[in-house]
Amino acid sequence: MLRPPLKHCRACGTAVDYRVPDDGDIKERAVCPACLTVHYENPLNVVGTVPTWGEHGEQVLLCKRNIEPRRGKWTLPAGFMELGETSSEGAARETDEEAGARFEMLGLFTVMNVTRVGQLHLFYRARLLDTAFNPGHETMEARLFLESEIPWEELAFRTVKETLEQYFADRRTGVFGIHTLDIS
Amino acid sequence: MLRPPLKHCRACGTAVDYRVPDDGDIKERAVCPACLTVHYENPLNVVGTVPTWGEHGEQVLLCKRNIEPRRGKWTLPAGFMELGETSSEGAARETDEEAGARFEMLGLFTVMNVTRVGQLHLFYRARLLDTAFNPGHETMEARLFLESEIPWEELAFRTVKETLEQYFADRRTGVFGIHTLDIS
Repeated sequence: MLRPPLKHCRACGTAVDYRVPDDGDIKERAVCPACLTVHYENPLNVVGTVPTWGEHGEQVLLCKRNIEPRRGKWTLPAGFMELGETSSEGAARETDEEAGARFEMLGLFTVMNVTRVGQLHLFYRARLLDTAFNPGHETMEARLFLESEIPWEELAFRTVKETLEQYFADRRTGVFGIHTLDIS
Repeated sequence: MLRPPLKHCRACGTAVDYRVPDDGDIKERAVCPACLTVHYENPLNVVGTVPTWGEHGEQVLLCKRNIEPRRGKWTLPAGFMELGETSSEGAARETDEEAGARFEMLGLFTVMNVTRVGQLHLFYRARLLDTAFNPGHETMEARLFLESEIPWEELAFRTVKETLEQYFADRRTGVFGIHTLDIS
């Protein structure tokens, strides 16, 4: 979701104006009338993994969400990238937090724009090292699914569906690429 | 560069406290003592292009920066991704703004974490349609360079250097991949 619009200056607390700054910019920004700080709002990165199990990666780990939005729906482990970490480190952190899984990180797999909500989603492949999961409070249940068992109608997010479809398609060819997609 | 730390609540303007929120989070955040808004700070995406010219893409367009940081140094056209655009659309917008070039966008080329400054850089390949450039105020000069002419010691950013090296390496093999790199 987009953040609520900024109403007060983050530097001095004065109520901001929305206008085109005087620096050659062409877009309306939140500008502080007191200290003249211009506030930019930018897309956020969501980072996650496709954790797989089995000699040929035939099972994928999904988490049943225990938080809104989409509580009760299934997702790949993913969340907002933080300052101080790489996209891969963020994806690994979310996999640890949401699934409590042990895994080895593999390569970048999907890069997807979700412009409507101002997000860029990046998923990495990961190889599970065992099947003992210890999900955190954000997850009701974490379990493995064969392709034929994936709850396609009960997935939480479009980018999760697209990433899973691409994973099983690549798995059939035996070659995992890096895939880009724009979702409106 | 990292943004200056948030001092006032963006919702109500009250001076914030830095503490671990009460919602199960484990990191210190700016929390508003009045309206209880928790403020998250996340990495920013920088998006740009490798604009090429010539039957075999033997020349690359670089822009001499007319703004700080690194004024006077050479860069690939790039800038901060904005809300409402995809990463590819942002890269195209920056190429238009900084070089005034006409081009066709091609595929994603490099995805690079620059953790020290909280940025993810994404560069796309682009095919120039002519050699008439009309750079904006952010650029002193825009011109084409053969590999042997690239001012390697006068490049503005490490991710520009890495992307150019990768471009000429891929060009020699004739196959352009998608490359990931983490820069500390």
